[in-house]
Amino acid sequence: MLYMVEMIVQIPHSLDPALVAQIKQDEKEYSQKLQREGKWRHIWRVVGEYANVSIFDVQSNDELHGLLSGLPLFPYMQIKVRPLANHPSSIVQE
Amino acid sequence: MLYMVEMIVQIPHSLDPALVAQIKQDEKEYSQKLQREGKWRHIWRVVGEYANVSIFDVQSNDELHGLLSGLPLFPYMQIKVRPLANHPSSIVQE
Amino acid sequence: MLYMVEMIVQIPHSLDPALVAQIKQDEKEYSQKLQREGKWRHIWRVVGEYANVSIFDVQSNDELHGLLSGLPLFPYMQIKVRPLANHPSSIVQE
Amino acid sequence: MLYMVEMIVQIPHSLDPALVAQIKQDEKEYSQKLQREGKWRHIWRVVGEYANVSIFDVQSNDELHGLLSGLPLFPYMQIKVRPLANHPSSIVQE
Amino acid sequence: MLYMVEMIVQIPHSLDPALVAQIKQDEKEYSQKLQREGKWRHIWRVVGEYANVSIFDVQSNDELHGLLSGLPLFPYMQIKVRPLANHPSSIVQE
Amino acid sequence: MLYMVEMIVQIPHSLDPALVAQIKQDEKEYSQKLQREGKWRHIWRVVGEYANVSIFDVQSNDELHGLLSGLPLFPYMQIKVRPLANHPSSIVQE
Amino acid sequence: MLYMVEMIVQIPHSLDPALVAQIKQDEKEYSQKLQREGKWRHIWRVVGEYANVSIFDVQSNDELHGLLSGLPLFPYMQIKVRPLANHPSSIVQE
Amino acid sequence: MLYMVEMIVQIPHSLDPALVAQIKQDEKEYSQKLQREGKWRHIWRVVGEYANVSIFDVQSNDELHGLLSGLPLFPYMQIKVRPLANHPSSIVQE
Amino acid sequence: MLYMVEMIVQIPHSLDPALVAQIKQDEKEYSQKLQREGKWRHIWRVVGEYANVSIFDVQSNDELHGLLSGLPLFPYMQIKVRPLANHPSSIVQE
Amino acid sequence: MLYMVEMIVQIPHSLDPALVAQIKQDEKEYSQKLQREGKWRHIWRVVGEYANVSIFDVQSNDELHGLLSGLPLFPYMQIKVRPLANHPSSIVQE
Repeated sequence: MLYMVEMIVQIPHSLDPALVAQIKQDEKEYSQKLQREGKWRHIWRVVGEYANVSIFDVQSNDELHGLLSGLPLFPYMQIKVRPLANHPSSIVQE
Repeated sequence: MLYMVEMIVQIPHSLDPALVAQIKQDEKEYSQKLQREGKWRHIWRVVGEYANVSIFDVQSNDELHGLLSGLPLFPYMQIKVRPLANHPSSIVQE
Repeated sequence: MLYMVEMIVQIPHSLDPALVAQIKQDEKEYSQKLQREGKWRHIWRVVGEYANVSIFDVQSNDELHGLLSGLPLFPYMQIKVRPLANHPSSIVQE
Repeated sequence: MLYMVEMIVQIPHSLDPALVAQIKQDEKEYSQKLQREGKWRHIWRVVGEYANVSIFDVQSNDELHGLLSGLPLFPYMQIKVRPLANHPSSIVQE
Repeated sequence: MLYMVEMIVQIPHSLDPALVAQIKQDEKEYSQKLQREGKWRHIWRVVGEYANVSIFDVQSNDELHGLLSGLPLFPYMQIKVRPLANHPSSIVQE
Repeated sequence: MLYMVEMIVQIPHSLDPALVAQIKQDEKEYSQKLQREGKWRHIWRVVGEYANVSIFDVQSNDELHGLLSGLPLFPYMQIKVRPLANHPSSIVQE
Repeated sequence: MLYMVEMIVQIPHSLDPALVAQIKQDEKEYSQKLQREGKWRHIWRVVGEYANVSIFDVQSNDELHGLLSGLPLFPYMQIKVRPLANHPSSIVQE
Repeated sequence: MLYMVEMIVQIPHSLDPALVAQIKQDEKEYSQKLQREGKWRHIWRVVGEYANVSIFDVQSNDELHGLLSGLPLFPYMQIKVRPLANHPSSIVQE
Repeated sequence: MLYMVEMIVQIPHSLDPALVAQIKQDEKEYSQKLQREGKWRHIWRVVGEYANVSIFDVQSNDELHGLLSGLPLFPYMQIKVRPLANHPSSIVQE
Repeated sequence: MLYMVEMIVQIPHSLDPALVAQIKQDEKEYSQKLQREGKWRHIWRVVGEYANVSIFDVQSNDELHGLLSGLPLFPYMQIKVRPLANHPSSIVQE
């Protein structure tokens, strides 16, 4: 089941740079693991913004919330989730 | 080059149903041709809305505008385009 | 799986009253069938508005979109869908 | 009498973690007590957000404000309240 | 129990003037009856707008929705309802 | 002359609690004095929010601004003022 | 007493051109009469828009609403009114 | 003097196609004349929208309003004007 | 040439009170000098807000930006500028 | 390929002034280098705001994001990017 997830990252300027670097590293590993598992199907950078647009493929709303709220950057993110369905014109029906 | 395109369709209720059906048919053919050509990479339905979220892969802004303004449903659409770039965490670099 | 769905109804004043009455009747029957099936778990009126807030319990995004886009009033609705998950404080875990 | 209450939680990053943990614990107990009393009828997590959507069943506006402003997390919340009424299509009339 | 109700009136220009005059007359009588009954406690004109701000005093959400959806001008109104409670600083406690 | 004034209070979490308590006390006395003088005609709590909706009855814009900017909580408030006039349907003409 | 009034004009395209011309003429006369009386102190065109920003000088909210709702173009206007007061830095105190 | 002007075009679907074609032709000639005169310095299409972003170089606000309100498409446009000034980092100072 | 300038002042609560008092004093002198020179034609207080609406009369966009960015309070302001033109109904043509 | 980029700068008041001055200097050099290379084609100041509107001419979305995210002021900016295409009325076709 597919969801479009938009994530805007806003890290407080006052946060310790070393901590920030660690969180970002953890975030990258966390994300790439899910990508390899096929759950985080796409992640693209929105040009000009510290934000991404992603497509998740998971079994349920609860699974998605678990994955998102587990993001190391979650406390510093504004996230908007939109559930997606098959489009009648799509030549790929999931 | 990737772009996220959000399309909300608002067909006036007063439009002749036969004309609407024809436009929708043309739209489907137009879209599927571009999907087969790899330019319209993804099209998903936003659940609950007469709207879609799509990912286009084209060579330039001008090419994208040509494709979008050529949509049979273009006169009845609100379209928002966001250019995408490779995300440093993505395991797929275009 | 639960979703919160907000529906604002805007029927054009110019629509034939008899047609409107029929659509509303169909809508009621359509809704009550889904309620009896447990898919449309709650439907409440937003005080002062021709709008409702509903809780759906379905198996997938696609199922939900099928149900919503099949609503007789769908062409005259603004719909916003928010996927819900279990809340850690809830004494009812689905 | 039913109300839909949307709560977005924004805890300042600078707050002492131990204090935060205590407040969250108090919040959970406070909420579960009201749920057992039937006043806080539903609480769902909005997927991807530190926010919930809840349905309260209370006797008056004043009672509701008392319950909400008494939430341990109240100082860190954005709350929107919408009064609900019976929907003519609902197969459950309160 | 008190509610603040904001009503913006938007009558289509195409509506028959005689019908409009009749609806407005019915609206005035409907409103003044409720005012005399003490349910529609205040109604003020928002300067410069075809809109009013009103204070209702009713027993329940359902009663309020019944009164509002029964307004002759209801089909041509945008209504926003905010439940009110006693303010700790008010020298009048309801 | 009547004005509707909406006040949203946002006190920084970092402010000294003793100072906050003092300001709130001063605010209450300030408000109740104006209420007794008939200038602050109504003050209601917006359910679920640290906000109020008030009706002021003063002689001029300048007088209203003087009263509002003199509020002890003024530095921590978002205030929106809407001038009100007599409504043709009101059974009370000021 | 001063008020800033912003007026956006939206005349339906379907309105009879002769009627529109007449209304505009009436509007100009109406406005210039009030300007000569000193009530409509300033009227400026917002560059690029069929809109104006005006400063009114009247005795009360009710007087202002009477003047605005009497505008021939009133049915085709979106109006926003903001009450103004003397600014402590102004070298002109009204 | 430079201004950024954003123009969104919304032509009613009900307008006679021949009239629309004529207006568009007039608009093109009107625009190209001003471009050749150096007043309409840039005009770009916003990708995916029936809208443009333009840079005007004129002597005054009044001149700009005259040019914009004279656009054949003016009645069907939403226009937003932002005055521009020299940027301290710009290697071109006007 | 006239411009309407709306200025909302948001001084951080943490700023040293003595510094704030000095900045405000400088702001008043800066403003009154420009008023006497006829450049800052009007400055009014928006009732209930730490904000003003002003009318500037300057020769160019660049001059206006110089004046505004030179305001002692500029770092603590949200400013919106709208260029104004002569209104055809105005009995005063600049 | 052209893009319109709007940049609003919000530097925290608490940042060390010397650091701020250095960042601004780096920003100016960074920008002017790109201007000389023809990538940053235009940069204009939005009157009254610490913001600019710029036109970039680059080969791809990725190149643009690299340039923008490399801005010394990037961490303190809100950036909005809109891809531009040739306008059919433009006398300059890129």
